[in-house]
Amino acid sequence: MEVFIEPIGRLMNEFSKLPGVGKKTAQRYAYRVINMSESEAREFAEAIINVKKKVRYCKVCGNFTEEEVCEICKTRDKSVICVVKEPKDVIALEKLHEYKGVYHVLHGVIDPMNGVSPNDIRIKELLARIAEGNVREVIMATNPDVEGEATAMYIAKLLKPLGVTVTRLAHGIPIGSELEYTDEVTLARALLDRKQI
Amino acid sequence: MEVFIEPIGRLMNEFSKLPGVGKKTAQRYAYRVINMSESEAREFAEAIINVKKKVRYCKVCGNFTEEEVCEICKTRDKSVICVVKEPKDVIALEKLHEYKGVYHVLHGVIDPMNGVSPNDIRIKELLARIAEGNVREVIMATNPDVEGEATAMYIAKLLKPLGVTVTRLAHGIPIGSELEYTDEVTLARALLDRKQI
Repeated sequence: MEVFIEPIGRLMNEFSKLPGVGKKTAQRYAYRVINMSESEAREFAEAIINVKKKVRYCKVCGNFTEEEVCEICKTRDKSVICVVKEPKDVIALEKLHEYKGVYHVLHGVIDPMNGVSPNDIRIKELLARIAEGNVREVIMATNPDVEGEATAMYIAKLLKPLGVTVTRLAHGIPIGSELEYTDEVTLARALLDRKQI
Repeated sequence: MEVFIEPIGRLMNEFSKLPGVGKKTAQRYAYRVINMSESEAREFAEAIINVKKKVRYCKVCGNFTEEEVCEICKTRDKSVICVVKEPKDVIALEKLHEYKGVYHVLHGVIDPMNGVSPNDIRIKELLARIAEGNVREVIMATNPDVEGEATAMYIAKLLKPLGVTVTRLAHGIPIGSELEYTDEVTLARALLDRKQI
C-alpha cells in the first residue's frame, strides 16, 4: 500500500515541481492546503490559472505585463535602457525606486557551453529599439559571472558603432561587508576600479 | 506603481500562505508557475481543487482517506490501536512498514493554555471504539512534549479501568547520536528507563 492516498500524493508531486521543494516540504504544503477552506483552495487554484492566462511579455522590453506594452515602457524615460537577463532582475532594480529609464530583458545570456547563441536571446530586438533613435545610454546590468560579462561585452561591441554610450554596473566590495571576507576576485576588481576621493 | 503586476502579486500572496514561505520564496514559486506550460499549470490548479474535494477524514480513525473508512481500518489488525496527534504522524509510522495495527488520530492534544480541552479532541471516539471490545492494546504515540505527555497520561487513566493494556513509545537516546550531545532531559530519561542486557 502507498503511504499517501492518491489526491495527496498527486498534490505533493505538483508542489515538488517548485524550485527547492523536496518531498518533506511538499508534504507540509499539501497538508496546509487540506486544512484550507474550500474557498481558500479555490482562490489558490484560480491564482495559478490566472497568472498563466494574464501574464505575457511586453512586446517592447520583454518584461512581464498584462497588456501589450508594459507600464514601464509606457510611462518612463526611453533615452536610457537598462539591459538585464531576466524579468526578476527588473524587480530587483525597481525595488530601489531610483532608476527612471526603461528596460530590455534578454531572456537569457550568451552561453555557448549550453548551446545559447546570441541569436537565442533578445539582442536583435535591442538593436531595433536603438535603431529607432533617441537612445542616449544603454546600461548593461547582466550578472557579474562569466556568461553575464561575455554577454555585456558582446552587446557593447555591437552598440558602440551606433553612437550610444554603453555603461556597466560597478563591481566592488559590497557596502557593509568587510575587506577580510571579500573574495579575491572582487577585491582585485575593487582595487583596479579605485576612484579618487 | 506596484513592483509586481497584479496576477503575479496575487499568486505570490497565495504561495505566502504556505508554511515557511516568505516573499522571496513566493516570488520564485510564482516565476516557476509563469514558466510552466498551460497544461502543467492547469494540472497544478486541479490537484489543489482535487485534494479539497476528495480528501476527508476516516469516520473510524480520523486519518485522511478518499472513502468513508480508510484502507488501514479496513484491512489491518484492529486489536491494537496506535493513538497519534495528527495525520502526519500516521505517515511517519507507516513509513516504517513495521506496525500492523490500526490508528486513532486525535486531531490535537490537550492544551489548556491554548484553550484545548479533552472534549475538543477525538477522545470520545476512542472510548467508543474500545467499548466495542476486541481491543487488546492502545499505544500512546503523542509527541514527547508537555502537551503530548499530559494527553497520553489523561487517556491512559481513562482506559485502564476498561481492562486495556496502555503503552507508550520508548524515550531515550536516539540511535546513532552521541551521549555528549544528548540533552539532559533525554539522558535522564534514558538512565531511568535502562534495560537489562
